[in-house]
Amino acid sequence: MNLYAVIMAGGSGTRFWPASRQKRPKQLLSLTGQRSLLQQTVDRLAPLVPPERVLVVTGRAHAEQVGEQLPELPPANILAEPMGRNTAAACGLAAAWVARRDPGAVCLVLPADHLITDESLFISTLERAAHLAAAQEVLVTLGLTPRFPATGFGYIETGEVADPAPPAVSRVAAFHEKPDLATAQAYLDGGKHLWNSGMFAWRAERLLAELERHLPELASGLAELAPALGAPDQEAALERIYPGLPSISVDHGVLEKCSHLLVVKADFGWSDVGSWEAMGELWELDSHRNANQNGRDKLHPVDSQGNLVSAGDRLVALLGVENLVAVVTDDVLLIAPRSRCQEVGRLLEELKVKGREEYL
Amino acid sequence: MNLYAVIMAGGSGTRFWPASRQKRPKQLLSLTGQRSLLQQTVDRLAPLVPPERVLVVTGRAHAEQVGEQLPELPPANILAEPMGRNTAAACGLAAAWVARRDPGAVCLVLPADHLITDESLFISTLERAAHLAAAQEVLVTLGLTPRFPATGFGYIETGEVADPAPPAVSRVAAFHEKPDLATAQAYLDGGKHLWNSGMFAWRAERLLAELERHLPELASGLAELAPALGAPDQEAALERIYPGLPSISVDHGVLEKCSHLLVVKADFGWSDVGSWEAMGELWELDSHRNANQNGRDKLHPVDSQGNLVSAGDRLVALLGVENLVAVVTDDVLLIAPRSRCQEVGRLLEELKVKGREEYL
Repeated sequence: MNLYAVIMAGGSGTRFWPASRQKRPKQLLSLTGQRSLLQQTVDRLAPLVPPERVLVVTGRAHAEQVGEQLPELPPANILAEPMGRNTAAACGLAAAWVARRDPGAVCLVLPADHLITDESLFISTLERAAHLAAAQEVLVTLGLTPRFPATGFGYIETGEVADPAPPAVSRVAAFHEKPDLATAQAYLDGGKHLWNSGMFAWRAERLLAELERHLPELASGLAELAPALGAPDQEAALERIYPGLPSISVDHGVLEKCSHLLVVKADFGWSDVGSWEAMGELWELDSHRNANQNGRDKLHPVDSQGNLVSAGDRLVALLGVENLVAVVTDDVLLIAPRSRCQEVGRLLEELKVKGREEYL
Repeated sequence: MNLYAVIMAGGSGTRFWPASRQKRPKQLLSLTGQRSLLQQTVDRLAPLVPPERVLVVTGRAHAEQVGEQLPELPPANILAEPMGRNTAAACGLAAAWVARRDPGAVCLVLPADHLITDESLFISTLERAAHLAAAQEVLVTLGLTPRFPATGFGYIETGEVADPAPPAVSRVAAFHEKPDLATAQAYLDGGKHLWNSGMFAWRAERLLAELERHLPELASGLAELAPALGAPDQEAALERIYPGLPSISVDHGVLEKCSHLLVVKADFGWSDVGSWEAMGELWELDSHRNANQNGRDKLHPVDSQGNLVSAGDRLVALLGVENLVAVVTDDVLLIAPRSRCQEVGRLLEELKVKGREEYL
């Protein structure tokens, strides 16, 4: 089995503003340690997939930075979308690229902006998913064991167990949109629902066949594009064809309609690093739950609890404050309560209205 | 009458930390506008005292920066104390320097780190004080009309009115230490008490005579020092004699013991700029009482009230926070509630204990 990793690095998230910007999205940031989330994603795949078979799908505006962050990748392995057309198109583009180079190869599709704490379990879980995808005419999705009644994720309802040996494999009974809190709690209590991770395994040709069946317009666009992939006219072909592709998620467009679907239960200490608030679980905390991204040596709290601060190399002096997020960049200072840091989008909307594009 | 301004720039206040440091005390900071408090002090004296007759008494560690900030002053006009010996010694040193150069001259003694909003009234009040000091054998102090029951200042109790025409002149009935709140309120209600401003007018020789009477040890040290003032051995003489001078304030050591004392009532919009909290009256506020030192153009609050921020040229983005002070410098981020920003001294004590001298 030839295994490829397809890293989805198309996001332009605003929830880590002001560290993340239109020109420097979350996946390119170093939020824990020195390496960016994208670099960490490639690093942790090393036992399974060498850089020559790692593919990154990203926006054109970010392709250059992706290349700089990943000098070990062949430049051709960075696929730059002229514009975002959602995940069905991105997965299809990558599958077409892989199928053309290596018919029969398996793709592992992974987001670029997540963190994983148990890397060896991560690798063995991916191996299992890849073997299933190689051996059967199925699409495989990874479902994360819920740790709390999250309302911010979609859920996968597991059906008949195909193999109970961990990581357990089941058929997929249904997909569910982001639930309200009561429903999420019921999912958690019931033990049958997993978080939809956005991680998949499939043979490239299997996905293309499913696209042909469920999204024929996308499939025909990709077929038109295929001869140019890896060729000198690739960029021109993308420019011409990509904007016309239907924009739909691979979940809605394919997985929810596909009957040959398995889910592998994943338990490898995952975080989607959804906002500054999430850093409370990822940065080193002092005894009063304060954290400085740059380390406790530069954290100096007095009568202060639960604050999360990113301030570069500065000393962080806190006096009598609680549960704040504060971020200092070269050109912005942000302060908000932890409970509201998911609302930074509101700030950005208003900055846009004011014409302050330089801060977006 | 030859008039000299003696600017007392010896402070090493910590209350504007982290902007103020041991090496960069408050009077050298630009807290409003581009000019430092010291520069503004010299600027506003221009109608009354030319730079050749402005004298600055400062600590040796700050003399170079004082010179850089005030290139219009003759270098000899910057008197560097080898160590702080409180205000009686500093006033005495300046008086000895002035008396040697210009017997009979009047000194206006002014702190370097205050702000004044009504500059023309400031000048006319100083003129009045200077004329009184020139014409009579008195020491003159300026008393500020209290605006609120301040517990952080000493008070001057006015006695017999010598001249009711504004700025009114009275005899001094008594000096009072910093009061408790009830006493401060009684002072405010009674209308007879003024804030002790630390601004004085006296003939240099008059002060020296009072020092001889009330602080003979200080007077004899100054007499020993006098021949060296303005001479090449000035620094060596200061080094030898200054550390042995008694350390006492001019208020305790002289004014409280002196019977020939007048107070001029001052109403010129004064602020001692005591801490970041004071900037709420000095920086431009938005409609929700938020202020950015660098101006409203770079202030972007959402659901936020009463915050005071100094963050250099950065955009200040506030989301759902109230009554905070935040200060960003090259090497420190400070966040505290406005109500506690007078406690930054606690932070500094702990930093000292931790051996983090670089932040003091």
